[in-house]
Amino acid sequence: MTHVLDEAIALEQIGPDRFCGRTTEPYANMIGPYGGITAAVLQNSVIQHPDVLGEPIALTVNFAAAVKYGSFEITARPVRTNRSSQHWVMELSQDGQVAATATAVTAAHRDGWTETESQMPIVPEPHDVATGTRSTAEWLNRYEMRHIGRPGATVADPFYLDGESGESSHMALWTREVPPRPVDYASLTAFCDVYFPRVFVRHGKAVPISTVSMTAYFHATKDELNHHGDDYILGVVHGDAFRRGFYDHVGQLWSRNGTLLATTHQLVYYKA
Amino acid sequence: MTHVLDEAIALEQIGPDRFCGRTTEPYANMIGPYGGITAAVLQNSVIQHPDVLGEPIALTVNFAAAVKYGSFEITARPVRTNRSSQHWVMELSQDGQVAATATAVTAAHRDGWTETESQMPIVPEPHDVATGTRSTAEWLNRYEMRHIGRPGATVADPFYLDGESGESSHMALWTREVPPRPVDYASLTAFCDVYFPRVFVRHGKAVPISTVSMTAYFHATKDELNHHGDDYILGVVHGDAFRRGFYDHVGQLWSRNGTLLATTHQLVYYKA
Repeated sequence: MTHVLDEAIALEQIGPDRFCGRTTEPYANMIGPYGGITAAVLQNSVIQHPDVLGEPIALTVNFAAAVKYGSFEITARPVRTNRSSQHWVMELSQDGQVAATATAVTAAHRDGWTETESQMPIVPEPHDVATGTRSTAEWLNRYEMRHIGRPGATVADPFYLDGESGESSHMALWTREVPPRPVDYASLTAFCDVYFPRVFVRHGKAVPISTVSMTAYFHATKDELNHHGDDYILGVVHGDAFRRGFYDHVGQLWSRNGTLLATTHQLVYYKA
Repeated sequence: MTHVLDEAIALEQIGPDRFCGRTTEPYANMIGPYGGITAAVLQNSVIQHPDVLGEPIALTVNFAAAVKYGSFEITARPVRTNRSSQHWVMELSQDGQVAATATAVTAAHRDGWTETESQMPIVPEPHDVATGTRSTAEWLNRYEMRHIGRPGATVADPFYLDGESGESSHMALWTREVPPRPVDYASLTAFCDVYFPRVFVRHGKAVPISTVSMTAYFHATKDELNHHGDDYILGVVHGDAFRRGFYDHVGQLWSRNGTLLATTHQLVYYKA
């Protein structure tokens, strides 16, 4: 049986560097599909491109407009191929209008001196943390989310928004797909966007938001992703600044064994 | 008199969305020009575009190949213009070959709830910190750099590489241009790349490196940049992970009064 994520990121080649896909109901968000799935299908346009070399190491997606439900076209062009890296430019359009732009880099990893400087925080095991429940959008049912709580909250409930601005937007979260699916670079891209908006946490209020730009750096090799399998991913996220309509979001995604799978950043529009 | 930075980022329009520029000697690096100046000229292709709306809020530059000394062409296309934001796709090419790809978002800031979560570290004032001297590349003479030292080093000298891997790549640095120049979004882009490579600091060795992808989020409005003027900028940087040929670099750029001007991220190739 095909996993819902694979259905959502499926692409059909319709010309050189041109692919066609369509939005799927399981990833519906409030306005258009979940941004993480749009990022994942853009990542997939590179992964499944006949000319791809190497593994994804960097991806940036700019969300130019809400994606409408239905079909979309992606162009994915390898604009420069070097000895051990390849540079990609992508565009997602609907009815001739650009809805998202993206760039990606794929490369060959090389063995050598390797150190992870950031440390995975010490947190309870996934099964010792309650699963959150909310049903404000269909895509939320695609992820099991176990929030470790927002610092300073009296309950380990990120959805407990008391209308008071706090001191911190830091949060940790165990998450995996429903049903579980072995992680790969496309699904890891989607995981980069699952976190509850930082402005809600910091400001203590749900306000209108929309991701403007999202970048992910993939630190794990394909072997490390295979080793991770379908186990929980620990997300650790915070925002540096919430200033005049835009805030940033800085995240790390960890394997339970302390492997840093990816780091991710977003710039998000908010109205508050 | 024109500042050297303005000479380096100058562009001449040669067609719709097409501009021509050339590398300048003051920003020469070891192989091709300083990456920060390439990022700045790509940012400038948007800023000086006749159709631009709003202020830069996000920029990603992917360095596909070393830029050769001489002239280059930049295409900068506004692919989507919304009510309060505009999405850009840029490409820098030489002899018909892509040397860098980029995307940018410009937008109007809006007043409203504003908080800076990250804190500027408490550090000595710029004039209480020694200026570094090194002359390995011409562009380094364009910046006055006052390194606050690498944690754990016995001397406040980031260039003291003892060949021993340390525990931390964290560093802070006061910097401004030589001669001083009032900061704007183009020069702020160039400031995002001035920091000594994190792998040198963490690994205790100079090794071959090359920035693959760089993203900057601009948190300051034009008014805040005007208020900053040509004063020193405090850079605070570290790397999360150095893994199999690629490391990331996470930076914050602060005004002396505690305004967070920008946050920046890089993915960098290294050989060690």
